[in-house]
Amino acid sequence: MLLPATIKQKSIWNKILNQEKVQLTERTKIKTNAIRAVYDIESIIKIIDESFLCHIGFAIENQPFVIPVCFGRENDKIFFHGAKGSRMFHALRAGKEICVTISIVDGIVLARSAFNHTINYRSVVIFGKAHELIDPAEKTNALKIITEHIVPGRWNDVRKPTDKELNATSIFSLEINEVSAKVRTGPPLDDEDDLKLNVWAGVLPLKILKEEPVEDISSVDTQNRNLSIPGYIKNYNRPY
Amino acid sequence: MLLPATIKQKSIWNKILNQEKVQLTERTKIKTNAIRAVYDIESIIKIIDESFLCHIGFAIENQPFVIPVCFGRENDKIFFHGAKGSRMFHALRAGKEICVTISIVDGIVLARSAFNHTINYRSVVIFGKAHELIDPAEKTNALKIITEHIVPGRWNDVRKPTDKELNATSIFSLEINEVSAKVRTGPPLDDEDDLKLNVWAGVLPLKILKEEPVEDISSVDTQNRNLSIPGYIKNYNRPY
Repeated sequence: MLLPATIKQKSIWNKILNQEKVQLTERTKIKTNAIRAVYDIESIIKIIDESFLCHIGFAIENQPFVIPVCFGRENDKIFFHGAKGSRMFHALRAGKEICVTISIVDGIVLARSAFNHTINYRSVVIFGKAHELIDPAEKTNALKIITEHIVPGRWNDVRKPTDKELNATSIFSLEINEVSAKVRTGPPLDDEDDLKLNVWAGVLPLKILKEEPVEDISSVDTQNRNLSIPGYIKNYNRPY
Repeated sequence: MLLPATIKQKSIWNKILNQEKVQLTERTKIKTNAIRAVYDIESIIKIIDESFLCHIGFAIENQPFVIPVCFGRENDKIFFHGAKGSRMFHALRAGKEICVTISIVDGIVLARSAFNHTINYRSVVIFGKAHELIDPAEKTNALKIITEHIVPGRWNDVRKPTDKELNATSIFSLEINEVSAKVRTGPPLDDEDDLKLNVWAGVLPLKILKEEPVEDISSVDTQNRNLSIPGYIKNYNRPY
């Protein structure tokens, strides 16, 4: 059933536990290449959790803006933060609709024809209005969620935010409610006639990988320091 | 000098050759963390060329949409294509303003305080209206630009688009004209008081790397085939 975008969907987290599908709205129904649409919440959450960068779209008098922002997820919400005075946060505070898109490129799909080239990817689109957190305890908890989403294990090691720092930061949450995903996997799909062509075809997988951690020794007296790299950095990997 | 967004900027390509900076408009002037703003065209083009995925934002009655799309660049234009009937291309054909954002994550910046955590990144934002290509020769050339941008060397090897395929594809170009970039590099910037804390701090670099190519042998008679992996796949790397 296709719902209008205005109908509120209740408790996506229950849907996850019950392995339900999301309810479609005019905004989330995938029309192009509908075969690649994914509406089951568990798959959608996996894509969200593998990423930590989203692109947030908002419009001011029909002028669109798309801003890359780090986020964290807990239960049925994503959280993101930034400088209080930014154009984006002014728009969010004014109750503007946003579109949050998360994309992972898994590989380049090399077909025998130019036309059938594509990429393997997983992307999630969330629609809604963001909600600003005001309470300092809630804000601290949201920063913990973001930090632990990006580097699980990090929060316990670091100096926690002061009231002044909390004051300087705006933090918003968005319900993962009106959401859909699109996924392409697998080999190229060539036309029958092209299969005989003498062209190498296949997939070149791509992955975001860590390189050697670079310790910040520029600003500290290293003579009295002998800090080993934490395990959560040494073994960093997504998905974790 | 800050120009209104409506004033057309001439020939960004001349600016590149003359190593000029872009002219700022209300839309492209970076207000938050302005210290990270980059307006010289050569640096901006390098970021664009290292990527092949952008996020295109458009708005329909103030409802924003953000769609991940592959692109190619030649001179002062980016090109992207897709299925004719998509919601995005309807909007573009109607002359809607778009915002194209390209983001590269270079690493996670681990400070001694939660608050000073950030990421190293490079991002570009382009504003404007996209222009649809109609002429078949122009469309073919644009597909070549996109293919060669994503996998340099590939175009010569593959079967070229037919008229029917060109007809099924919409291709748009966008001038890299009203553009700016934002870049963060380097170690964490901790508060003086935090430097004495016994917390490992530094940068965990991240990079998109290729894995082993997977040949498509599912759909071909491999007995008569002995295709070696092309060098442009074997040695694939970005930036190239």
